[in-house]
Amino acid sequence: MAQQHLDPTDPTAQVVSGDALAGYLRAQATEFLRALRLHRETGGDGGAPARGKARPGENGSQESVDAARALRRSARRVSASLHTFRPLLDADWSEAIRPELAWLSGTLAMEHAYAARLERLLLALHRLSGATVLPAQTGAVGMPAAADAQKTATVDAAAPSHPAATPERGNLTVGAAKAGALLERQLTLARTRAHSTALQALGSSRFHAVADNIAVLASEVPLTPAAATADLRPLAAAAEERLTDAVAALPLVTAGSPYNAEALIHGLSPDPAPHPQDAPWHQVRLLLRLHRYAREVLHGDNCPVDVRLLASGQALNRHRDASEASAAAAQAARTPRIAPATAYALGVLHADQRHEVEAARFAFQQSWQMQTVGTP
Amino acid sequence: MAQQHLDPTDPTAQVVSGDALAGYLRAQATEFLRALRLHRETGGDGGAPARGKARPGENGSQESVDAARALRRSARRVSASLHTFRPLLDADWSEAIRPELAWLSGTLAMEHAYAARLERLLLALHRLSGATVLPAQTGAVGMPAAADAQKTATVDAAAPSHPAATPERGNLTVGAAKAGALLERQLTLARTRAHSTALQALGSSRFHAVADNIAVLASEVPLTPAAATADLRPLAAAAEERLTDAVAALPLVTAGSPYNAEALIHGLSPDPAPHPQDAPWHQVRLLLRLHRYAREVLHGDNCPVDVRLLASGQALNRHRDASEASAAAAQAARTPRIAPATAYALGVLHADQRHEVEAARFAFQQSWQMQTVGTP
Repeated sequence: MAQQHLDPTDPTAQVVSGDALAGYLRAQATEFLRALRLHRETGGDGGAPARGKARPGENGSQESVDAARALRRSARRVSASLHTFRPLLDADWSEAIRPELAWLSGTLAMEHAYAARLERLLLALHRLSGATVLPAQTGAVGMPAAADAQKTATVDAAAPSHPAATPERGNLTVGAAKAGALLERQLTLARTRAHSTALQALGSSRFHAVADNIAVLASEVPLTPAAATADLRPLAAAAEERLTDAVAALPLVTAGSPYNAEALIHGLSPDPAPHPQDAPWHQVRLLLRLHRYAREVLHGDNCPVDVRLLASGQALNRHRDASEASAAAAQAARTPRIAPATAYALGVLHADQRHEVEAARFAFQQSWQMQTVGTP
Repeated sequence: MAQQHLDPTDPTAQVVSGDALAGYLRAQATEFLRALRLHRETGGDGGAPARGKARPGENGSQESVDAARALRRSARRVSASLHTFRPLLDADWSEAIRPELAWLSGTLAMEHAYAARLERLLLALHRLSGATVLPAQTGAVGMPAAADAQKTATVDAAAPSHPAATPERGNLTVGAAKAGALLERQLTLARTRAHSTALQALGSSRFHAVADNIAVLASEVPLTPAAATADLRPLAAAAEERLTDAVAALPLVTAGSPYNAEALIHGLSPDPAPHPQDAPWHQVRLLLRLHRYAREVLHGDNCPVDVRLLASGQALNRHRDASEASAAAAQAARTPRIAPATAYALGVLHADQRHEVEAARFAFQQSWQMQTVGTP
């Protein structure tokens, strides 16, 4: 871990005091307020998608989408820092605001999540149909490509018209085309609802209370009296330890053995709770994020990029996305009165995404074992 | 390749003359006749499975199943040797008997193939349902386990009652149970027909002509006059070269990259010819077998085991089995009037077997790159 690791027992390391935490929280709060202003100015609350016709990227400008992402980004960082450095902050204040921040970033994330999920599933249907993929996704075959496609989808989600969302149905079998149409209908509806919910949230008094709290934070961080001289590093180290403990509990030996076929093992299980095996990975994803933000607090603006953490985090994002996409395919297959060909295509799609889950675990295992190569 | 590789330019290597070929062919012909006698004595032509009730292993005794396997085994070796060492054998005779041997071993192989395919698919359905597997298949999770299960299935196929063939349906979802029942019905019917076809073949005058030819071979191998002093090694080397050329044309870089998602790329293709990408692998499987049998001819009874060839061949067998099982699942999904839940389970099953195909290619790539470790 070398230079990037902050070892509290290292006598050569500098003490990082509560000032660094205050500075970080102020900066994130300022960023939140800036994003909120931008979101209001760019009409983030206009252009709700018409039901059944909405496509990813059709509503909201690029600026408004960027602003919503920046809002989520800073809300997550504030919330994470309040959690990791809890003993250094006013307990009542901090415990009151954290669930509110979680509610806000969760609510704001849903619309994008449904759009991205639909993109992922439609791209997978095209890949599985051996259809010619779009120029931007020419390499979109298999694991690394799926990640690429996902990235493309994320970027494109804000473009006025999204080519991948209007696929040439001619290349698909009837089953694949019908499955695609069904998923588009269901996920677009979910996305439209999420959009409305987000708008309602942003206009609510609950949100205004959060914004007021963040405005206070931007000028005055409620540190405890002892925080100014306290060392942040033991608390950051504890966050890292929670991460490494959780990783140690993952079945990494299995995950590192290619084609272990673990991810699909409950693919046809009668168990209504799908894939409890995914939960520990989701948990590691959250702990990795907490660790990453704690590093940002310690290093400030000079936080070096840790490619190992970055790659591991991307693998876990992909794991989460594939896990949720596979569940959406399984859910769509439960729609009453669908044709057998549609159900068959959804079964293939579900299994494909479960293998993406397995591939993402393999990728995580590989990047986690990787030697840290610091890029300061 | 060291000691096992027969390099015709190696001056220290011994010439292997046509006598070795004659000896090998006589031995295989004798084995064929012995198996045929055993097959007749053990009632291989009795006990045709009753339609719709037959289960793998219910018809034919263990001895009769062993005898049929030995028949196929020697027929394949005779046929392969006639092919590889063609210039050393009477051309008319050899060209007349080869297609007959191919017909015979093909016909005899079908019944076993359908039984093994059903076993593979039912075991996969159980694995996908997260069901408790049988003690013998406790480790039967994922890739190596699927191969194990397959082995077990092969061994068990002859047992009077096969536990895996009577799975506890209670552990399965309705869809998985119905998919299993549908596959069992279709593949058992196919197996019953293959059984009848094999019986008819063994009673036919066409078969008796083959047996007569093999009887001649057991006493007098029709070598060309030049064969006695000819060196077999260049012909064996040519067989090996055909194999290495075909392997070089395989997409091994892709295959060696885990989770490349290539195998499922036409999983939902409207193309009626399923998975043309499998054909070159099937071809390598046949060429590897020809190479293996040519080695047997050269080395005689002292043929050292080449673990690399063995592992590579097993991977290609698994590739073939998974490819055909995936096609059977897709075929079953085209049955009219099935329930959507059944179709969904068959879609998951199809994709699962296509990933087995991909896993087998990965395993082949791994074993093929392996350093040869001779076990003389």
